Amino acid sequence: MEILGGPLFAVAGAGESHGPGVTTIVFGCPAGLRIRRDEVQRYLDRRRPGSNRHGTPRQEADRVVLLSGLYAEGEIDQLLSGPAVSISGEGDSATESYEVGFATGEPIAALVLSTSQRSRHYEQFAGPRGEVRPGHTDLVKYHKSQGFIDIRGGGRSSYRSTISDVIGGAIARIFLKERFSTEVLSSISQVGPLRTNLSLAQHFESVRQKEESRPVTPEQVAAVEGRLDEAEIRSLDAEFAQEAGELIKRTRIEGDSLGAAVEVVAVNPPSLVGEPLYQSLKVRLMGALGGLNAVQSCEVGDGVQVISRKGSENNDPIRSRGYQANSHGGLIGGVTTGSPLVCRVGFKPTSTILKTQQSVRKNMEEIDFALEKGRHDPCVGVRAGVTLESRLAIELMNAVLMHQSGRVDTRNFRLF
Amino acid sequence: MEILGGPLFAVAGAGESHGPGVTTIVFGCPAGLRIRRDEVQRYLDRRRPGSNRHGTPRQEADRVVLLSGLYAEGEIDQLLSGPAVSISGEGDSATESYEVGFATGEPIAALVLSTSQRSRHYEQFAGPRGEVRPGHTDLVKYHKSQGFIDIRGGGRSSYRSTISDVIGGAIARIFLKERFSTEVLSSISQVGPLRTNLSLAQHFESVRQKEESRPVTPEQVAAVEGRLDEAEIRSLDAEFAQEAGELIKRTRIEGDSLGAAVEVVAVNPPSLVGEPLYQSLKVRLMGALGGLNAVQSCEVGDGVQVISRKGSENNDPIRSRGYQANSHGGLIGGVTTGSPLVCRVGFKPTSTILKTQQSVRKNMEEIDFALEKGRHDPCVGVRAGVTLESRLAIELMNAVLMHQSGRVDTRNFRLF
Amino acid sequence: MEILGGPLFAVAGAGESHGPGVTTIVFGCPAGLRIRRDEVQRYLDRRRPGSNRHGTPRQEADRVVLLSGLYAEGEIDQLLSGPAVSISGEGDSATESYEVGFATGEPIAALVLSTSQRSRHYEQFAGPRGEVRPGHTDLVKYHKSQGFIDIRGGGRSSYRSTISDVIGGAIARIFLKERFSTEVLSSISQVGPLRTNLSLAQHFESVRQKEESRPVTPEQVAAVEGRLDEAEIRSLDAEFAQEAGELIKRTRIEGDSLGAAVEVVAVNPPSLVGEPLYQSLKVRLMGALGGLNAVQSCEVGDGVQVISRKGSENNDPIRSRGYQANSHGGLIGGVTTGSPLVCRVGFKPTSTILKTQQSVRKNMEEIDFALEKGRHDPCVGVRAGVTLESRLAIELMNAVLMHQSGRVDTRNFRLF
Amino acid sequence: MEILGGPLFAVAGAGESHGPGVTTIVFGCPAGLRIRRDEVQRYLDRRRPGSNRHGTPRQEADRVVLLSGLYAEGEIDQLLSGPAVSISGEGDSATESYEVGFATGEPIAALVLSTSQRSRHYEQFAGPRGEVRPGHTDLVKYHKSQGFIDIRGGGRSSYRSTISDVIGGAIARIFLKERFSTEVLSSISQVGPLRTNLSLAQHFESVRQKEESRPVTPEQVAAVEGRLDEAEIRSLDAEFAQEAGELIKRTRIEGDSLGAAVEVVAVNPPSLVGEPLYQSLKVRLMGALGGLNAVQSCEVGDGVQVISRKGSENNDPIRSRGYQANSHGGLIGGVTTGSPLVCRVGFKPTSTILKTQQSVRKNMEEIDFALEKGRHDPCVGVRAGVTLESRLAIELMNAVLMHQSGRVDTRNFRLF
Repeated sequence: MEILGGPLFAVAGAGESHGPGVTTIVFGCPAGLRIRRDEVQRYLDRRRPGSNRHGTPRQEADRVVLLSGLYAEGEIDQLLSGPAVSISGEGDSATESYEVGFATGEPIAALVLSTSQRSRHYEQFAGPRGEVRPGHTDLVKYHKSQGFIDIRGGGRSSYRSTISDVIGGAIARIFLKERFSTEVLSSISQVGPLRTNLSLAQHFESVRQKEESRPVTPEQVAAVEGRLDEAEIRSLDAEFAQEAGELIKRTRIEGDSLGAAVEVVAVNPPSLVGEPLYQSLKVRLMGALGGLNAVQSCEVGDGVQVISRKGSENNDPIRSRGYQANSHGGLIGGVTTGSPLVCRVGFKPTSTILKTQQSVRKNMEEIDFALEKGRHDPCVGVRAGVTLESRLAIELMNAVLMHQSGRVDTRNFRLF
Repeated sequence: MEILGGPLFAVAGAGESHGPGVTTIVFGCPAGLRIRRDEVQRYLDRRRPGSNRHGTPRQEADRVVLLSGLYAEGEIDQLLSGPAVSISGEGDSATESYEVGFATGEPIAALVLSTSQRSRHYEQFAGPRGEVRPGHTDLVKYHKSQGFIDIRGGGRSSYRSTISDVIGGAIARIFLKERFSTEVLSSISQVGPLRTNLSLAQHFESVRQKEESRPVTPEQVAAVEGRLDEAEIRSLDAEFAQEAGELIKRTRIEGDSLGAAVEVVAVNPPSLVGEPLYQSLKVRLMGALGGLNAVQSCEVGDGVQVISRKGSENNDPIRSRGYQANSHGGLIGGVTTGSPLVCRVGFKPTSTILKTQQSVRKNMEEIDFALEKGRHDPCVGVRAGVTLESRLAIELMNAVLMHQSGRVDTRNFRLF
Repeated sequence: MEILGGPLFAVAGAGESHGPGVTTIVFGCPAGLRIRRDEVQRYLDRRRPGSNRHGTPRQEADRVVLLSGLYAEGEIDQLLSGPAVSISGEGDSATESYEVGFATGEPIAALVLSTSQRSRHYEQFAGPRGEVRPGHTDLVKYHKSQGFIDIRGGGRSSYRSTISDVIGGAIARIFLKERFSTEVLSSISQVGPLRTNLSLAQHFESVRQKEESRPVTPEQVAAVEGRLDEAEIRSLDAEFAQEAGELIKRTRIEGDSLGAAVEVVAVNPPSLVGEPLYQSLKVRLMGALGGLNAVQSCEVGDGVQVISRKGSENNDPIRSRGYQANSHGGLIGGVTTGSPLVCRVGFKPTSTILKTQQSVRKNMEEIDFALEKGRHDPCVGVRAGVTLESRLAIELMNAVLMHQSGRVDTRNFRLF
Repeated sequence: MEILGGPLFAVAGAGESHGPGVTTIVFGCPAGLRIRRDEVQRYLDRRRPGSNRHGTPRQEADRVVLLSGLYAEGEIDQLLSGPAVSISGEGDSATESYEVGFATGEPIAALVLSTSQRSRHYEQFAGPRGEVRPGHTDLVKYHKSQGFIDIRGGGRSSYRSTISDVIGGAIARIFLKERFSTEVLSSISQVGPLRTNLSLAQHFESVRQKEESRPVTPEQVAAVEGRLDEAEIRSLDAEFAQEAGELIKRTRIEGDSLGAAVEVVAVNPPSLVGEPLYQSLKVRLMGALGGLNAVQSCEVGDGVQVISRKGSENNDPIRSRGYQANSHGGLIGGVTTGSPLVCRVGFKPTSTILKTQQSVRKNMEEIDFALEKGRHDPCVGVRAGVTLESRLAIELMNAVLMHQSGRVDTRNFRLF
């Protein structure tokens, strides 16, 4: 089952790159959370290829409609003010969708349609003589599925499937912010060989230490988001962002691609959440973030740097107001400490390049592969931030519900 | 998570009675299965309230669109000939949907929209002074969700949610029929106090014994389906169906309702499927069928009758061609024997009636409850057959994949 | 996975009829619950074949040891006063086990050893020419496992595997009793053709109505348990129990067997628990109870009787103090109403009988089957009560934790 | 639920550091696999603290007994020749355990007892004034469990819980080796600041290229294992191992600790396994390996190095005999390509050190923390290899069964 998170808060997704649409069902949102379609849309807008100066040139509206799981007694008109959805043909059906309402605890379904894709051609990749793009899933998926594979744009292995992640993440973020003032942010920290020394983790850790471990304020978050929004690519370091943006442009012209690294941070996370051992929050975050398409490394807290440290350097001192450092990245024993959750995720350079490469046809005939047509996104990592934030939020929210499940308050179990 | 079946073949559903639509994602369909939208539609048509002379008078088109998980290399035009789907407003999106294609193994999403529901009024049930319909979920769900509940038509607890069951079941049935010639049928065996002695189980058992345990033929199945289609209500016994139909009409006029029992049978089931003990096919079928809305009993094979038998009467003799009787209903130790799978499901009389009843408001004030407006379906059991068949098919298909998983054939694991 | 309940409170089991022992791991017990080994043992004692005058004559100690998941700060001596466990041979290991402590929230492991079984012989059932016992899992499991099957005493399909159910159930019952005063009881209501009209459901419903819906008191429960303990077989109706006991004795002498039905009731259940639809408490109870070995029917509330009722007879009236009747068996829409949970489970007559029957060898050669040696338990249903109670308690407890998970109280998420 | 792997092949574990024992249940081993207790023991022996010159000085026998899920028709004496297990006290029970047999497909339970721990004292950590060890789970687990926590040796968060991983991994490895000649190995690649340039991945990749992509032979594997066994610490680079061993000794004397990195590789992995997206093998391996206690980074294939590469450098060329390089680490799109699976896991320095550190009591009073007594393992990473190998094997085996489930062969579904 393609389920992200769970077993309590979980996201099911369906839909291929060039199929009719991406369908998402979000399970386990507690009743009573107020959800606005435009908040979900705002995160989706950040995910869109065209939202970024350096992504793929494809333009997609990615307009989301919400189809279930909300209600608003006494505000039905507002509830039903979302975009109308219709199905053509005999027995036409058309209906309003939801714009703003309260979660009922039932599954929340969301749909993002694709614009019509009929005109595209994919002959280069079709059938047993179809050519294999090095670094892509073409070959393994063709043989795994015994040839029954959607060759258009990578099928479901496309980045387009992350629409579901972002929708589920949006709902988790609304919940976490409302209840715990938790906010999830990300900053690009490396593009190819270029790196920045500025990190969200350090930024917020210094804020925390200055403020004596008080929660990060909305204003402090907004200030950081402002810097991220303004940068050439979404990074805390404007100068690095500028240089990286130029490198990406040059690399696009060369027909080549670049790897990238992204730091993801949750500030004001709820404490004490995360199951022990096999389903710990560390297991879940490493899997959810490290398992994303094109990712080849995932670090928690100070990550690979801790390998070369001594224990006396690495153990974070504890005072009565909280941990005095965050080498541990907010997780000890897979349980949240209240310090910011910190991960760093490394992406390989985009597989699709314009240079000729050694490859095979699906029937294993050897070829020199050159892409006949198609878009070219020289650095997928730079637009992955919102997906990583979403996955972190989904796992964190599931962990919150898991922790709460063990604290049974009998007052919640009375009817008469 | 609202998941039916699984962990391999599974159906996720979302959508309330009067919400914008019912969204379904079907996981785990093996790559290569040819799926036609109109076959799925055919089962949905049987589910529709208006499809039956004795159901609720509500007319719903229930037109399904398939949004992912199919492909058809070389037949893209046919693949994309399904109904167009569109979302209105700025940044309009519209796309073709899938009409016929081969499963790719990826999740298959399906959408059934509701027709516009804005005009309906539900003041009688709204808010803390809202009235509680006896036998309905109004009261428990209101308090479970702390008041955040969709009061329109029962919300998700409505029979409308079974659209997902039927869509998932349709795909399972296409698979089971293609691979094993398995067919799933149901026959109404009781309506209120009226019963029939004719049963699908006995009918097919006598066919099997006559034919020396050879598979039931498509013609034999078609003959039974013809009888079911022609009867006043879907029962093998036309005379009983006639009488029951008249009883339902009289009961509707009286403003009262009736219980019913439905027999569900799978002929030519694959043998040897079903896990042991806690996740046995018996556990799964008892849960999936016995747990449907309004059901209060579920029996396998000869069901409650076996309680009063002796072992010497009840043990089914075995010969080299198969079991010589089917008291066991096709399951021994929770594993299929190849004899038809047989279940019998008992429904309570529909809760909604027009007579005045003792009830409360949601705030527990006592009232005499009388329905102000709304439809009245006097016997829900008589249109539950296709849902029961669907749930059986979903669990059976999941069990097939589970059994296959343990028979590892190394030829399936080669690439180069 | 052989998991009962879950995903929050769950029981994993392992172990065959004549293997070294039955191993159980109980997941999800909230931290802080005080657990005594002797309470768990008390339920296991009720399960033992020899615990009942009419079960199989096999004598088993079934002594349970608790190996993890408990602690007792300041009472380590008491904690460690359970039976010592040892493993022989070079590098002997021996350790105390737990007698009484508080759950830490970590998995609780329990072990029940078998007494040495080496001397038994099972040639009659061995290999491809092994004989098949009609009604048993011999044939399907042999072919499902391609011959790799433990033929001793039914392997894991034996009733002995229910030790895990009872251990998990014991922990759930301790929790439910402590927090909600919930108690789970069962009464045999039918043995072969003999039935009783006395039912636990009616008994407690009349108590409830008399007491104006106040909780059932411990004394009222104890009075019923006293009657059950004293009866010839565990039934509320002493006269019926006497007759049934005699029928069982006669049937044993005849070498035949009898079916039975058992009513299971939970009084003072927590209200509002149970997920909607596909994982509702009704789905889970129907599956867990109806899927037990040898069961062929499961009913909730008034069960098959409701089929022939009218809605006006069947809808339970509601007053401000609670439901005025319990046709619904404590569940509406799969959610608990606070009325007692009521199920009725029907067992087939024990498959093992001494009479000659038509059967086959595992290679499908036809034979006249007669049991060469082995025990004979003429009515398995009469000792299934404690297992059914356990399964109900496990599912109810899981549903409690599920319900609590959605009621997030931010005070539970603070560390500093 | 503490489940590793799954839903098909899965391992459940229970047991704390100083509790009576560690209990393990392995689900989903296909029937027919021959399993020897001594093979399982061999892997456990590698895990033992005392097995390594540089681990903690604690001596534990860690003798495993197998309690279910095996059988051996015609070889019962051999089957039952495992160590006897007994429980003392009134109603003593003692039984043989399994030494060698064939998996029946039923759950396999295993028990490893602790030696008696009663004499140890843990006052330093007890109660609300108990001291918190920086870097340990003491604080979060105490508050998560509201004080109900086993303070002895870290409770379940101890490394001792990995006994279950190794037992489950042993069974997966026996299966993978028998069916696919898959072997899993690991090599320490960094200790504190010391690194080696030798890697298993490069070693086997050069073997593969030389041999034109033919499977790695048992002799080639044995040669590598010989080198690993002989090294001062388990590394392919003997010189590095020597230096690292000395550094560890010095660091132990200083009362400090060191981080480490371990490379894990599976050669001859089955191709085409791994689900798409949310449950891909990459998600699962990143989670299972990256989520282990004390781990803060996990890399697949060339890991963090790929970030700074261009696509034209990083895409692995494909020829008809296979991939010509393995930057991808054996996984593309989360599916195996047949190239070796390669991961690199980074461990923080052991939290327990002898130097004084700033910390708190569990009630948040500030203290200078110094360990009063207890063992000190200066570099946990160096003995984690067998656990990492085990987790990789478990996830790989589950993925094999998942892939097979979709390739339904109707010949597996016949009985008569």
